[in-house]
Parts: sequence; C-alpha cells; structure tokens
Amino acid sequence: MRLLILGIFFLLHLPALPQSEDEKMIRAIFDEALESGQSYQMLDYLSNEIGGRLAGSPQAAAAVEWSREQMVQLGFDNVFLQEVMVPHWVRGNTETGRIVASQTLGSKDVAVCALGNSVGTGKGGIVAEVVMVKSFEELEKLGRENIEGKIVFFNRAMDPTKINTFTSYGGAVNQRGSGASEAAKYGAVGVVVRSMGLNLEDYPHTGSLRYAPDLPKIPAIAISTMDAEILAGVVNEPGLRFFMETHSVMLDDVLSHNVVGELKGTSGKYIAVGGHLDSWDNGDGAHDDGSGCVQAIEALRILKEIGYKPKNTLRAVMWMNEENGLRGGRKYAEFADKNKEVHVAAMESDRGGFIPLGFTLQMSDEQKEKVRSWKPLFEPYGVHDFTRNGGGADIGPLAQQGVALLGLLPDSQRYFNYHHTPADTFDKVEKRELELGAAAMAAMIYLIDKYGL
Amino acid sequence: MRLLILGIFFLLHLPALPQSEDEKMIRAIFDEALESGQSYQMLDYLSNEIGGRLAGSPQAAAAVEWSREQMVQLGFDNVFLQEVMVPHWVRGNTETGRIVASQTLGSKDVAVCALGNSVGTGKGGIVAEVVMVKSFEELEKLGRENIEGKIVFFNRAMDPTKINTFTSYGGAVNQRGSGASEAAKYGAVGVVVRSMGLNLEDYPHTGSLRYAPDLPKIPAIAISTMDAEILAGVVNEPGLRFFMETHSVMLDDVLSHNVVGELKGTSGKYIAVGGHLDSWDNGDGAHDDGSGCVQAIEALRILKEIGYKPKNTLRAVMWMNEENGLRGGRKYAEFADKNKEVHVAAMESDRGGFIPLGFTLQMSDEQKEKVRSWKPLFEPYGVHDFTRNGGGADIGPLAQQGVALLGLLPDSQRYFNYHHTPADTFDKVEKRELELGAAAMAAMIYLIDKYGL
Repeated sequence: MRLLILGIFFLLHLPALPQSEDEKMIRAIFDEALESGQSYQMLDYLSNEIGGRLAGSPQAAAAVEWSREQMVQLGFDNVFLQEVMVPHWVRGNTETGRIVASQTLGSKDVAVCALGNSVGTGKGGIVAEVVMVKSFEELEKLGRENIEGKIVFFNRAMDPTKINTFTSYGGAVNQRGSGASEAAKYGAVGVVVRSMGLNLEDYPHTGSLRYAPDLPKIPAIAISTMDAEILAGVVNEPGLRFFMETHSVMLDDVLSHNVVGELKGTSGKYIAVGGHLDSWDNGDGAHDDGSGCVQAIEALRILKEIGYKPKNTLRAVMWMNEENGLRGGRKYAEFADKNKEVHVAAMESDRGGFIPLGFTLQMSDEQKEKVRSWKPLFEPYGVHDFTRNGGGADIGPLAQQGVALLGLLPDSQRYFNYHHTPADTFDKVEKRELELGAAAMAAMIYLIDKYGL
Repeated sequence: MRLLILGIFFLLHLPALPQSEDEKMIRAIFDEALESGQSYQMLDYLSNEIGGRLAGSPQAAAAVEWSREQMVQLGFDNVFLQEVMVPHWVRGNTETGRIVASQTLGSKDVAVCALGNSVGTGKGGIVAEVVMVKSFEELEKLGRENIEGKIVFFNRAMDPTKINTFTSYGGAVNQRGSGASEAAKYGAVGVVVRSMGLNLEDYPHTGSLRYAPDLPKIPAIAISTMDAEILAGVVNEPGLRFFMETHSVMLDDVLSHNVVGELKGTSGKYIAVGGHLDSWDNGDGAHDDGSGCVQAIEALRILKEIGYKPKNTLRAVMWMNEENGLRGGRKYAEFADKNKEVHVAAMESDRGGFIPLGFTLQMSDEQKEKVRSWKPLFEPYGVHDFTRNGGGADIGPLAQQGVALLGLLPDSQRYFNYHHTPADTFDKVEKRELELGAAAMAAMIYLIDKYGL
C-alpha cells in the first residue's frame, strides 16, 4: 500500500516521464531511431552506391535488388517483388541550350535539361525566336500568329510568399507538366521552362511532362532560375534566338518491380508504408525519394527491433516509377484489389527527409478525428500539424478501395532547392531529421495498428 | 446596405483571406521578408567579407563598423555605439594534437582546437598519459593518485535521444566549460574534451571555458567526435600518451562596442531585439550568430518599409562578446539601468538561422498568457510553439530590471553540426528559413509594441 501510494506520488510529480503504454512505446521508437537508427546508412548506400535511378535504368534494377536484400537481411517475415511494366525514357548523352544573337550578351550557353518523357530535337537541334509567357491564358491571347515556328519560354516564377513551398510548386508546375502541349496547340517548335525552384540557382530542375495525345510532341527543356532571369532580360531584343539540342527518347516499356517487405500480423489485413524507389537521373535521389524508402524500411525495422507484434501485416513498399509514370503505385493497388488485400491504411513519405512536422490525412472525418486524438502523443517530438489534407501520389490509387491515406509532412522550406536537380544528393540529408521522420512514421503505424482507423 | 451585406458575405465565406488588422499586418511583414528580404544579403557580407570575428579581433571591429553603416544606410532614425571593454583571447597560429605510442595506431595526428579563454601549452607542448572520464564524479572517484601529471579526456557524448538538441548540449557542455578546472583540482596537466556535436565529424568544436580563480590554469583542447571515438578505443593501451601544443593567450582587455539602431517611438519606452555580433574564429559565424544580427536589423527594416509607426522606440542591438565574456550584454543592461531606459521587452535570436517554430518566454505568467493569446496569428507561418521557458544570454542581464524576455525558437536539429566549428559558414544558412525567422521576430515586435506586455 505504501509502495503503491509512493508510486502514485511519483507519477503525479514526474509528469515528464512516460506514463501510458503508448507514451512508453513511442519513446522507445524514437530512442531506437536516434540511438541505433539504420536509415542514414541505408540512404548512404542507395544514394552513393546506386545513385540516380530512373525507371527502366540499370540503377533502378539495382535498387530493386538492393532493397529486397536489405529487407531480407533485416529479417522481415516475407519479402517479395511485384512485376510492373514501366516506361523507359532515356535522356541522351548531351543536352545543349544557347541564347543566340543577343545584342547585349552575344551568344551565351545555358545549362539545360530535357523534361522527362520529352522527345529530343534530333541532331542539329532547333533554333528559333522566343516568345515569353507566364500563363496559358497569355499563350492563348498571343495565338498562332505570334507563336507558330517559335520557342515558347514559360517564365512564371514560384510564389515566394506561400509558407508551404508545395503550394508555390502547385502554382507553377503546370508550365512544366502541360506547357509543351499547350504551346504545340499554336504551332510552337519547342519549349523552355523556368525551373521549379524558389532560389536563384545555376542548375536546372528536371521533372516529367505529359503530352496531350492529339497534339504534336515538341521538345521541352528546363533552364535554371538564374538563366530564366537572364533570358527574360534579353528576350525582346530584335533578332534574338534560342538554340536547343536534346537527344532524349522514349523506348519500349520494360519489366521492373515494386519491392514489398512484410512483418506478419494475424488479422488478415494490411498497413502499407513506403516511398518511391525510382528517382531522377541528374542527382542521386536522396531526398526524392530515397528518404521515403529508407524511412519505410526503418519504421518496420524499429517496430521489429523493439519487439512489437503487429495485429495487421505491416508492409514496407518501394514503389517503382513515381517520377514519370506512377505505374508502381497503380500496380500495387491493382494487386491489392485482385488479391483482396484489405488495407487498414497506407502511408507515404515523399516530401523529402526533412524534420517531420505532422501528417497529411486523406480519410473520413471520423478517421481524421481519431488520428488527431493522438496528437498529444506526437507533440513531444515536434510532430504537431495534423490539419492538412492529402495522401500521396503512390498511395493515391488505393483511395478507390476506401483505404485511409496518410502522408508524412516534413518541413518544406528546403525541398525545392534540391527537387529534381543535381543537388539532390546524400549530403543534403541531415541524419537526425531523417531518423525523426522514420520514428514518426513508426509511431503512427503502431497507433493505427493497435487502435484501427 | 446591399454592399455591406455583400461585404459580410465575402468575409464569412473567405476565411483564408486576412481579416483583422493584425492578420493583414503580419501577412505584410512575411510578404516583405520573403519577396524583398535583405537579411540573406546582409549575412552574405558579414560572413563572407568579414568572416569569423572573435571579440577584440580586427574582424569584430569591422563588424561593428559594418553593422553601424548598414543601419544608417537603411535609414534608421538613430544609430550609435556603446563602448564595451572586452577580453582579447587569441588562438595562436598553430595547434597540434597527437595520439602517441598507441600499440594499434602508432602515432596519429588529430585535429584539435584550443578552448576559448584557455592558456597555451607553450613551445614544446605537453605529453602525458591519458585518463578518460565521463563525469566530474568519476574524476573525483579516481582522485589525485590517478590523475596527477596526466591529461584528462572528457568523453561524455551528447544524448541523441533528446528531441531539442539544446537539452543534449546542456547535458554535456560542463565538460568544456568547467572540465579544465575540475581536472586541475587533482593535478592534471591538460584536458582534452570530446566536441559538443551529435554527429560523427572530423572537425573539432571550440567554445569557451571558465577557469576557477583559485586553481591552476591548465591547457584545454577539443577533439572531433570521430577522434574521440578513436581515442576512447585505445586510451587504455599501456604506454599510450597524448601530445598537445597550443599557443593561445589572453591579452589585455580592448575597447569594442555594442551597435544599436533605433526606430523612434513616442512612449519613451524601448523594445530591444538583437543577436551577438562576435563569433568564433574557426568558421564565419553565419549561424552563430550572424543570423540573429541580420534578423534583428531586418525585423526593423521590414517594419519601417511597410510603414509601421511604433509606439515604443524599437532597437536592433548587436551585442559584443557573447562567446567568451558576455560583456556586451551586461554593458547594455548597465546603460539601460543608468539611463533609465525602460524596456517593454527584449528579444534575442541566438539559436541559428533555421526555420522558426516558436518563441521561448521568460516573463510573468500573465505576460506569457498574453503572448500565447497571439499564437493563432503565428500558426499560419509555422510558428506554433510558445511553451518553453527562456530568454537568451545577452538579454539575460535585463531580467534584473524586470524586463520581459523572449527568444526566437528555431528548429534545433542541425545547429550542433555547425556550432563553434569551421562548418559554421554562410552556405549552411537557407535563405527562406532566415527570412521566416526575421519575419516572425518583426511580427512579435509589432504585437508587443501595439498591445504592450
């Protein structure tokens, strides 16, 4: 009795100590991640030994094999591949861009990169006058008489005043995604897009475009934000032209794979957590989305390591081909449907390996309320924002099956410095930030597994 | 009437638009910081043109003159210097550390840096056996018989499981601050301290020590976390010794200055906001605390630019000598006391130029409640944490005058990768993070100025 009273006394007077089972479990998850985490060394291998890994490339195949082996070595209960046919776009060996016949600059080379899925210019390139626009409306207003035979330069900058940089991105990215076909409507012969970045940088950002099926496919490149400023300064000089030469080509689809590792539960249901294994070819894909991949593997490793026995089967999923096709995400949902794998929830980390601030939610209001009731468990770890909607690209196709979707929400301030660029490299990832994200994901999986959704 | 109803209709149906005067003002502050901010270019100059600027150095004098000029050029109403006598510690040209006569490593050089305020070893250095400890208790237990004539190696690592890394720092930094005198109690001839860092790095972290007045002053150096691991692995080998040679010296105090820029109010009272202008000599002091200095100047520039007329006189204060003496902070409080400058509040930014998450508060409970009532105004900008106690080192001396103190609270995950190291350089500062911090400070100053505390 006196011991019990003493115990209660301590509980009352030491509120900082973990009290509930959930608090203890989540503390154990974060301790494991921060003291003995393996996400950083996994990412080191994926980034530095394998590197950039566009779908269909030898590096993508190596990443499939590496992540399979990794999960086998960690002792996951079951590791398997899902076959996915993916597009096989190849950049070509050289890419050239040049401002030609500027009265003030003369001839000036600019760094360029072909947009993903774009056709090449062919040998000899194209050279044409430049029409600068900031919107599709402006393009329409100019019409065929002002655009035909010219290169359209899309130069609407990302809005720096948005606090979440993904909002700024969302406000500019249609220039990259649809600009080529929009310009082709009016007879343009090529497209130059201002890179999707908030800083003034000297390297271009790649990313995929989608050609409208019924319009001519014209070549499209990105230039750096710095060069976009320079080009904008001279674009109206009489006689100015732009030269571009790219050799990108879309080859036949090839066989690739999603990689799935499981910790087996007993309910017959599933919780999936993952990132996309493919990346762009110009960096090593450390933030986009090597981070999400290793965090997913790490989340399951942590739960296994601390001895948690899941009710549901937990899956770490490496989706293939998010960047220029989303075939892996679609295929995963297709298999889940066909095999009647009922998912309690699916979670994705694809916003970079930065400090985790919260989770985005795409689920019913009742489910959101349940997740938000766990907020006090996350707040001691800085994870506090459960207000935003959204899941993620690769888990999106599961929504049709009524699956509750969550996205890890890290800080977004630095993401578009690196996104789709040669600067997306391992050294830009901070070990503790990556680890905190993995732990937040593991904690969320634990709560969903234990309490359902 | 119909127009009024229409107006109300829009207000009710567009909750995302700024509504209140305060919301509009804070939106204008953030827009100015993110669209036309000058903090990043100011920091570029301070870091790259002036560089490391320890109190008493020519660089510190240059930083005084630069910040004075900067605030004059920005059109502040009044810019002046406060005379401060500062300690003048000089590192010396060479610093050497070496593991000697290891059975496994042979002789191995390690990168070292003398701790600030430490005495040098003199020419020829010292060489001695090494005793490794992790606490002052362990040192006491070992006693003079095991320590006399030896070098004490303090190797207690920062705890990686603390989420706020300043807590980890607080749990380890007494080894650096007091280790030399604690070891001198038992006759040690020198001290080697494991750097205050969470990652395994190959560069040492400097920082100041304080010698106890009644004990011998013995030389003290830091080694990198990586070398601390290596030394720990061989420290018990028979015959192993450590060689250290430093030429640091404490010269006579010299005249330096705090720099103060004002936007004049009419109340006769003051609100001070600042950072410390001095920095360590091994980096360029971009995060510690160039960021805080330029954010303070920028906060006032923003308020002036958007046309805000303050009630109280707003001061941007560049304190001198925080790193190895705190003379500037003390002198500022002394002047405030002597000149009867009543301060409504004082705010400091000295935790790096990272993404702002909140403010620490050191004030009465009523005042805290008032500040916390403004939280909804900050949350759209990611600034959400008003739970922590604390002000800052340089504003600390104002507490005796009953001044309410606030500290900008940025994310802490990366700070101790750079703190007091050659890696604390301009390229480690992210433009948007710095700008968001300056805007958060400006917004807080605006609210305190308008509503009082």
